[in-house]
Amino acid sequence: VTWGAVVSGMSDLLELRDALRRFAAERDWDQFHSPKNLAIALSVEAAELLEPFQWLPDGAAALASATRRQVEEEMADVLLYLIRLADKLDVDLVAAASEKLRANALKYPVEKARGRSTKYTEL
Amino acid sequence: VTWGAVVSGMSDLLELRDALRRFAAERDWDQFHSPKNLAIALSVEAAELLEPFQWLPDGAAALASATRRQVEEEMADVLLYLIRLADKLDVDLVAAASEKLRANALKYPVEKARGRSTKYTEL
Amino acid sequence: VTWGAVVSGMSDLLELRDALRRFAAERDWDQFHSPKNLAIALSVEAAELLEPFQWLPDGAAALASATRRQVEEEMADVLLYLIRLADKLDVDLVAAASEKLRANALKYPVEKARGRSTKYTEL
Amino acid sequence: VTWGAVVSGMSDLLELRDALRRFAAERDWDQFHSPKNLAIALSVEAAELLEPFQWLPDGAAALASATRRQVEEEMADVLLYLIRLADKLDVDLVAAASEKLRANALKYPVEKARGRSTKYTEL
Repeated sequence: VTWGAVVSGMSDLLELRDALRRFAAERDWDQFHSPKNLAIALSVEAAELLEPFQWLPDGAAALASATRRQVEEEMADVLLYLIRLADKLDVDLVAAASEKLRANALKYPVEKARGRSTKYTEL
Repeated sequence: VTWGAVVSGMSDLLELRDALRRFAAERDWDQFHSPKNLAIALSVEAAELLEPFQWLPDGAAALASATRRQVEEEMADVLLYLIRLADKLDVDLVAAASEKLRANALKYPVEKARGRSTKYTEL
Repeated sequence: VTWGAVVSGMSDLLELRDALRRFAAERDWDQFHSPKNLAIALSVEAAELLEPFQWLPDGAAALASATRRQVEEEMADVLLYLIRLADKLDVDLVAAASEKLRANALKYPVEKARGRSTKYTEL
Repeated sequence: VTWGAVVSGMSDLLELRDALRRFAAERDWDQFHSPKNLAIALSVEAAELLEPFQWLPDGAAALASATRRQVEEEMADVLLYLIRLADKLDVDLVAAASEKLRANALKYPVEKARGRSTKYTEL
């Protein structure tokens, strides 16, 4: 899996950000894209992504192919709204994610967290 | 804003994916990371991201700086779980998002959608 | 608005609880109704309830009648899953809500909270 | 379990509705309680209710008692916001839930739905 080619030194996320800017500008949609509305939309899409899993046994085998297609589209929607919100709030998504991962490594030290799903506040 | 440097031709998302793989492997957490559980976690984080906006007027000025910091962390969590779920389901996030954006352009033609927040099914 | 007649001294919620028990029993659905799955379903329905509001201006006039109908159904779904989950976890919903309201009155004293949407931790 | 006594022929939900009206009026909070904001709050609480279940195996034994207490409070929050939203939209929650249950009985006939978690559109 390559997850999109890296073209001319520009990251995938920045390309999507720019495409979303054009998309909204052409439709005069910036008026609807307040951070609050985008956060709602993101949350709604995340729930739509969760929906096909709701009655599935935890260790279920692969999703049916129609469901898989739907899940893929909902994941795309989540990413698109996340990028759009990051753009509006001027958040560097990749930097924020890298930093959060480093913070998580401190909250969940390997020796304490191994094999346990306990929240860090209880470790 | 650069949103992370592109290093050695590998995309940011793939680097995060690999970092998450190592993170989970070191803690023996793959057992908890079923697609269903990851979809739940993503949805929970998306709601936590929404929470600071809930009583805010739509056109609210900038978030307070403490809130902004929290929002940034929740956005990071959403991205991390999204990448992890994509890895488990073998979904190419960037390709899926690009394709969805193309599909949205067909569902929302500029001349019909301009200045309107109406759902495509009602356009 | 009467919100359902009170019949023979039994509360509305208990009647719905019993109807849901019969519904699940007839379909052999108790196997799917783990607390975890019901909590997912509740959360998905709550997001579906939110969906029609996502692009609406805050002070929007009445919902269109088709949307209103949809919103009413999603509210019904939320209540039904909430009652079902309460039944599975043996929670007295009305007692829990009354107690929470009392706790909120302490967290948000009238003189401090008046006209402010600030979280109690910041008051 | 009695789920609250029925006093003087008034349903539990109506009593809670009236208590919530007083609560908001005393704090001058009606200005924040737009249907949109209440729908957001409901969705956020539903996700908080889901949170303790996220890494739990499906067939998990009873919740730890601290977690149970938290779950009970989140269920209370969901009910309170649902009642408040119903009040603002003038929805009869009990009637809506009864009607939805009847509609579900038609969508999921016993003979077709027995022992299956399939969505009605696929039955």
